[in-house]
Amino acid sequence: MKIAIIGTGTVGTTIASKLVELKHNVMLGTRNVEDKLASTKKDSYGNPPFNEWLKTNQKVKLGTFADAAAFGELVFNATHGSSSVAALKLAGAKSLAGKVLIDIANPLDFSKGMPPSLLPGLNNTHSLAEEIQETFPDTLVVKTLNTMWCGLMINPDMIGKGDHINFICGNNDEAKAKVKKLLNQLGWKDKNIIDLGDITGARATESLLHLWLKVMGITKTGAFNFSLVR
Amino acid sequence: MKIAIIGTGTVGTTIASKLVELKHNVMLGTRNVEDKLASTKKDSYGNPPFNEWLKTNQKVKLGTFADAAAFGELVFNATHGSSSVAALKLAGAKSLAGKVLIDIANPLDFSKGMPPSLLPGLNNTHSLAEEIQETFPDTLVVKTLNTMWCGLMINPDMIGKGDHINFICGNNDEAKAKVKKLLNQLGWKDKNIIDLGDITGARATESLLHLWLKVMGITKTGAFNFSLVR
Repeated sequence: MKIAIIGTGTVGTTIASKLVELKHNVMLGTRNVEDKLASTKKDSYGNPPFNEWLKTNQKVKLGTFADAAAFGELVFNATHGSSSVAALKLAGAKSLAGKVLIDIANPLDFSKGMPPSLLPGLNNTHSLAEEIQETFPDTLVVKTLNTMWCGLMINPDMIGKGDHINFICGNNDEAKAKVKKLLNQLGWKDKNIIDLGDITGARATESLLHLWLKVMGITKTGAFNFSLVR
Repeated sequence: MKIAIIGTGTVGTTIASKLVELKHNVMLGTRNVEDKLASTKKDSYGNPPFNEWLKTNQKVKLGTFADAAAFGELVFNATHGSSSVAALKLAGAKSLAGKVLIDIANPLDFSKGMPPSLLPGLNNTHSLAEEIQETFPDTLVVKTLNTMWCGLMINPDMIGKGDHINFICGNNDEAKAKVKKLLNQLGWKDKNIIDLGDITGARATESLLHLWLKVMGITKTGAFNFSLVR
């Protein structure tokens, strides 16, 4: 499948590598292609600059946000939550119309110190995914994978034999079914994918970041997740 | 130990019964003792009125909020989050000073429909437990048990052989150690009690209610919890 990923950070590149391995046709979208390729800066986690990553991932295409959105039959939002809506506007409502958009971003607010809180207006009675769905009413927004470190998103078997949970929500059942199939390809078993219903479920999964960040502060690793005990 | 429980709802009475079974000396605190004893109303879950519960739990004392706070060496806050601070003010800052207060309330806001959100001003960058700690600076507030149904609070073995998680946080390590011992008596193993650090950890556990409520809407039972997979 032709898949676009809006955002070239650790999350975007991690998913891109995996999707290529699964034989998908992948284009990453960035704000400015020339700037992105010219940059020699390591990212905030100390990872090599993007152009070095691209050398070892030559099957991944690079384009603008708009190029990527036009290319993808399915689109991932892997931007920072604080700039997701702006980036998706640059990607273009027309290109995104009728497509499934997998939103894995979180509306983290780093302006008040660490650990971050959630952005004003995008928490408690609202969420980033709802904001995106309202801004792009013709797009089928599905929220998933946002409650874990990206290493686990594409390799759930890394811990607990893959038996830990990933939430999914969205207003369109067909779109969610399509995303579940892609999650299966990434290694997620159906029994571990919990459907929270419509897109307001994102209030629950984005809120989980408060706890996730606290636990990560204790475990000192992102390689953890939660499971449901009944 | 002499233990006071502020609040006579399902959570308060469930904990009271268990503490009596564990040979503790328990007083429940209510706003108005005569009204409480005279009421013949079932609660919102259809449980029998309080005076019937009391007949089968005769070792439990009943007093005002102030009576209970004066009586207890350790105090539970089991009121609704929306009225916790007011109830604790009636209990009295002097009586609560120097004591451990176990806060198991959640700042749920039912005014905007179901599922509830969190109360304005008590979410994201603040929490009910922090509000209580700030209002009663001489009290040692410890937040715990607020992320599950009360049946599990006092009987974790009901599911998953007791192996699921309970969070704890608070500014005073001695107070947390004391509460952990009580949690052990309730059936909680040390390995399943995750210390999130100071009282700001309550932002994380109170936020989890968003997800908890969504999952309960799916499972149709409160008899579930989360475990940590590493």
